[in-house]
Order: sequence, then C-alpha cells, then structure tokens
Amino acid sequence: MHFDEAPAFPRGFRCASRNCGLKADGKDLALFASDADAIAAAVFTRNRFPGAPVILGRETMKGGVLRAIVANSKVSNVATGAEGLDNARRMAAAAAMELGTSADHVLVSSTGVIGRRLPIEKIESGLLGMSSDLQADPLVGAAGIMTTDTHPKALSARVGDATITWVAKGSGMIEPNMATMLAYVFTDAEIDRTALDRMLREAVHASFNMLSVDSDTSTSDTCAILANGHAGRVDDRAFFDTLVAGCVRMTEILARDGEGAEHLIRARVRGAASDDEARRIAKSLVNSPLVKTMVHGADPNVGRLLMAVGKCFDCTIAPESTDASINGYPVVAGGARVAFDDAIVRDTLRRDIVDLEVSLGVGSASATAFGCDLTKGYIDENAAYYSS
Amino acid sequence: MHFDEAPAFPRGFRCASRNCGLKADGKDLALFASDADAIAAAVFTRNRFPGAPVILGRETMKGGVLRAIVANSKVSNVATGAEGLDNARRMAAAAAMELGTSADHVLVSSTGVIGRRLPIEKIESGLLGMSSDLQADPLVGAAGIMTTDTHPKALSARVGDATITWVAKGSGMIEPNMATMLAYVFTDAEIDRTALDRMLREAVHASFNMLSVDSDTSTSDTCAILANGHAGRVDDRAFFDTLVAGCVRMTEILARDGEGAEHLIRARVRGAASDDEARRIAKSLVNSPLVKTMVHGADPNVGRLLMAVGKCFDCTIAPESTDASINGYPVVAGGARVAFDDAIVRDTLRRDIVDLEVSLGVGSASATAFGCDLTKGYIDENAAYYSS
Repeated sequence: MHFDEAPAFPRGFRCASRNCGLKADGKDLALFASDADAIAAAVFTRNRFPGAPVILGRETMKGGVLRAIVANSKVSNVATGAEGLDNARRMAAAAAMELGTSADHVLVSSTGVIGRRLPIEKIESGLLGMSSDLQADPLVGAAGIMTTDTHPKALSARVGDATITWVAKGSGMIEPNMATMLAYVFTDAEIDRTALDRMLREAVHASFNMLSVDSDTSTSDTCAILANGHAGRVDDRAFFDTLVAGCVRMTEILARDGEGAEHLIRARVRGAASDDEARRIAKSLVNSPLVKTMVHGADPNVGRLLMAVGKCFDCTIAPESTDASINGYPVVAGGARVAFDDAIVRDTLRRDIVDLEVSLGVGSASATAFGCDLTKGYIDENAAYYSS
Repeated sequence: MHFDEAPAFPRGFRCASRNCGLKADGKDLALFASDADAIAAAVFTRNRFPGAPVILGRETMKGGVLRAIVANSKVSNVATGAEGLDNARRMAAAAAMELGTSADHVLVSSTGVIGRRLPIEKIESGLLGMSSDLQADPLVGAAGIMTTDTHPKALSARVGDATITWVAKGSGMIEPNMATMLAYVFTDAEIDRTALDRMLREAVHASFNMLSVDSDTSTSDTCAILANGHAGRVDDRAFFDTLVAGCVRMTEILARDGEGAEHLIRARVRGAASDDEARRIAKSLVNSPLVKTMVHGADPNVGRLLMAVGKCFDCTIAPESTDASINGYPVVAGGARVAFDDAIVRDTLRRDIVDLEVSLGVGSASATAFGCDLTKGYIDENAAYYSS
C-alpha cells in the first residue's frame, strides 16, 4: 500500500488551526471542513465516563451527515457535568456559524486534562474568522489537536480517482476497545452511509482497537470518517482495503509516538482458538510492563512472553504446542525456551520496530496488537502532567 | 490486630538459608521445617505456563501433609520442560533426605529468571548439612527467597496459645488472581485439613489476590500454610480473623516493596453492584499506569480516577452517583470533579500510604486492592534484569 509522502486532502476538504489561548504556546484549536455535506460515520470511546463532546457526538452522528469537525486540545471537557455539555453545544454552534452550516452538522472533540471547565469564550473568539485560514495541508489541522504527541500525524493514499486522508493524535491514555484517540478520515469517494459505517467499524476493529500505549482507555476517544462524494464511486473492495491499511499504518504511527516510546512493538498471535482469544493474547503481550521493559532494555528475557500469554487464564493454551519468536528468531518451542544466539536477538531488539510472534497451535485464528516500550520518558510525562 | 515487632516462629518450626552458588552474592536457598508432620494447604498461580515446582507442588499437596518447604531464588525452573520437572523432584528428594522425611512431604518453590536450567547439582550440594543450620528467626529463611525485594519479609501474631508466622517474597511480575509471589504461613494451632484449606483460600482472596504491582502474573506463585498442631486447638473465628489480617498486612508490605515503589496505594471501592465488580474496579485503579504515575508525581489529576473506573466497560457504573476521594478529601461528586484545595491534596499524595476511595452508589459490595506507584526505578530494574 502506497502512502503519499506529503499528505494531501481529498477534493473539497480543508483545515485550519490556531492558538486561541488555551495553551501558552502552540496550536490548540483545529477546524476541518468540507465544502459540501459529507456522509459520515463515527465510533466513540467505551469508557463509562465519556466526555461531553462524546455525549454530544453520539447525538450528532444520528443525522449521519457532517460538514465539519472542530477540536480543541489542552482541556478535554470531561467530568464537567451539565455545563460541560452546554459548552460542547456552544462549540458546535460557533463553528457552524463561522462556516455557514448548522450545529448538527459539526462534530466536536476536546482532548487534554479531565475535570477542568472548558474555556468556551476563548474557543468562540478563536473560531471567529477562522474560515479564512482554511488551507489544503492536513498537517496544519493535525498540529491543532496535539497534546503530548511529538509530531503532527497525517497520511493520505489514492483509491482510483479518490483520495483518503487520515489525521490523528494520541500518545497516552490509549487502549482502545474503540478508537482511543482522535482519528479523522476524510475522503471524496462517494459511499453510502450504511457501507461507510460498516467499513469504519471493521477498519477500527483491526487497527485502532488493537492499539495500546498504556492499557488506559481515554474518556474522549473518537474516530470519524467523512465522505463528500466529489470523486464519485470507487471500487468498494479497493476502498475498504486502503481504509484498513491506512488505519493500521496510523495505528503504528500512534504506537511509535506513545508517551516516552522508543520502539514500536507489534505482537502477532497465530493459531489461536478464536479471534477473540487471539486479540486478547496479543493485547496481553503489548500491555505487559515486563514485555515492554524487556524491549526497552533490549534484553531477550523470553520467559516474559510465556508469562504474558499464560496470564490469559481463560484462553485455550497448550504449553506443548506454544512457539514464540522475536524479530523472526525462534526463542520458545513447545512451551520451553530454546537455545538462540543471545547477542543477535539482543541486537535485533534495538530496532525501531520489534516484532513478537506467538504461535499457539490450538486453532487457526490470528491477530496483531500494536504497542510501544515503557520508558522513563512515560513516567516523566505522566508524573508531572499539569493538572491544575 | 497486633503483629510482633520481631517475628517469631510457632513451636516446632525453624528455618535456614544459604548461598549455594546460584547468586554471586547473598542467600539463594532456604529451608523451612516442622519437627512433626503438619496439616497443609496451598494455592498456586493461575498462569497457564506454571513452573515445574508448581506442577510438582499441585501433586505434593494432594497428600495434604508437609514437613518442609525448600525454595531457591535466582532461577525459577519455568519453561524448562521434562528436565525441569525432574529437577524439581530431585530438589524435594534432597531436602527430604537432609531432614529425614519423604519427598512427598516437601513443597518446592523456585523464583527468578524464566527459561534457564535449574543448577540442581548446586542445590543438592547446598542442602547437605543444612539441617544443622536450622534456627528460630523467620527472617533468616525470608532472606533466602528474595529476588528484587529490598528487605526480607516476615510477620507473626498470636491467637490464644498459638502463633501464626508469615514469610513472603515478591516485588515484580505480581498480579495475583492467585497468590502471585511466594508466601508461606506457619502455625502451631491444631486445625483440620478441610478448614485450613477453606480459610487459606478465603484469606488469599481478600489479600494476595487483590495485590498488583504491575498487572503481570508470575508463573511461580505459591501460597502455602502449614499447621503442626503443637499448640492444640484455638478459637476458629479468632484464628481466621488473624490469618486474614496477617495476609492483608503482608500484602501491603509486598505492594510497598514493589519494584521501584515509593508509595503503597490502597484502592477501596464501595457501593458496587457485586463483589466481582468491586474487585475488578479496585484492580483497575491500582493497575492504571496513569493513576500510578499520578501518585508518583503527587499530582491530583483526579480525572484519571474516573478514567480507570470507566474503562471497566462491563461493570454497573452510573456517573451521576459516582463519588471519589483521595486520602479522605472528596475530589469527585456525581461523576464530576469538585473544587478541592489542590495544595492540601497534593501534600497528602506525598504520604507513604495513599488511600483512593470510589463510591459507585449502585449497590452494596466493596473491595480493596493493593498496589504501588510507577517509577523510574521499576524501569531500571526491568529493562536491565539479567536474563543470560
């Protein structure tokens, strides 16, 4: 799958970002707009304390049509009660006014600290005149939604005459089970609403829902797709395959930029009894602090792989048929450690991408989870994260 | 509940520890012996890759009688195949020979690196003559089973004319769901086997099974109790209450000495719909990296408490009835952050023990989980843990 080096927007989409005074420095407000109504679908966090924008977003998405997304960083508008929901509505209304559309065609996202009142007045002022800033570079919008991300994240790819563009943010409080970060997908392909919704859910299932930076599930996660139809119909299969590949690629980018991360970890589980078990065991591997620190320390302490598999108590696991490898080098066979060249495996663990593979030998299901190593940088970011 | 400052053994129990050459420095072999057959019960790890000593231990415990426990540190004898099980049997036989009992009356434990052959010859040599070292101080045995523990761990308390003594080790790869470390309990009370087994299981359920240092579940965890009857019968209720209190206290000691830990975190959940949900939510709090780093940084970023509760997707949670406090200071009411004195709460987070409490308001079940903060010390220990 080919992704454009300099990401571009599909026809009709543009974005802008500004500093409206929420952050001392840097962009804190982003606007993504289509010049025509777009068929839309979205999935939201399963956390039982969803933020006000998620509560409003579920209502907005009932219409199935969007013209814009407005998002702020720094304050997440979560655990803010009735006033928080009012503020999310005011944010949608202000963006709609600026773009000349209705508030129920605007999806709102907020990301940042939980439990602080949203400075809605600053956002309303910031949106004034923002439509004149709209431009063609997706990275401009991506910059407006960053929190602890170290770089703005956008991708694009072609499907026939159409383009798909992904814009995302997220580096901590990331274990999906849903989107688990902000990820927006824009396309000018013409797709009907039912198909769009189904394709988004399937793509998220294989990508963002297999991402875990720290096993914590945000209260704000949102993944939305907008299709404005300007490029006409494209091959459904090609569109779906590209959508999945881009979501997987963006998942890898998010994992690699996890808070403090120095490595992307891909954990592939094969031969599982069911899809669900393959997914749970793959997640257990990328969530294990001992596996994560093993990668960080480039220390092939391979017993930790068995430990992380074996703690999935309720899964079908047969030690005698369990094999494992690190970056293609076999380290476990039949549930026991095998002799391997320690220096070579240690060396491969220093690669930017570390591939762990476990073959369970009890079925035919497989899954891949995406994570990162656990470093002192994670602790620096989260022990000092400003909450006041 | 009163625990003796200098822990003592019940009548008839003694212990010894030695360096038998597994570690470069420090004790690596421990022997605990009763001078008469003791009624015994044990629970073992639920990890699906149990070590050879756990496989053998399950067989040994069918007899329900023990005279001794022999344990080594440094090498865990896990993922070692048929040779590993042979070596565990040889270790039991060597201890039995030294003590003049039979191998099926000796429980074996090994703790340390996974996937390395057990140097059984060194252990056999080390056991020779060890019965002459047996002495009355439980801390001597505790020193022989330490891995990354920063101090040996033993407690004792009186019940009528009897004594109960706890000896334990464990600081990483600790999330029970079973014992999740090595914990041995010795008593001279006379108790029948069925009651002893039931009381151990109930005590472990409320204590060691609510402990999580890092959410990883060891392949070696064992908790055993030996009752040699020298003190005769004691009040059942008083014995059980003391057993539970000592197991909880030892759980707190283990959590506080978690790898790199600087704080003990106790997470109390009240008003849950069921015991199981109370336990899951309490565990979610002590397992959340963001809650752990919040405590480490003494930063009352209270939204993280709601996040950790809310990610228990399948539990009964009503945001409007959810309250939370930190060290007794209310920080969340009705699912929203409430105003609190940031400086005071920040100050209490610097205490050695941090108490988090969440009241769900949806039922009457409660549970407490025990954990610790996440620090750079954890990463230092686990990124560099010697595996070769």
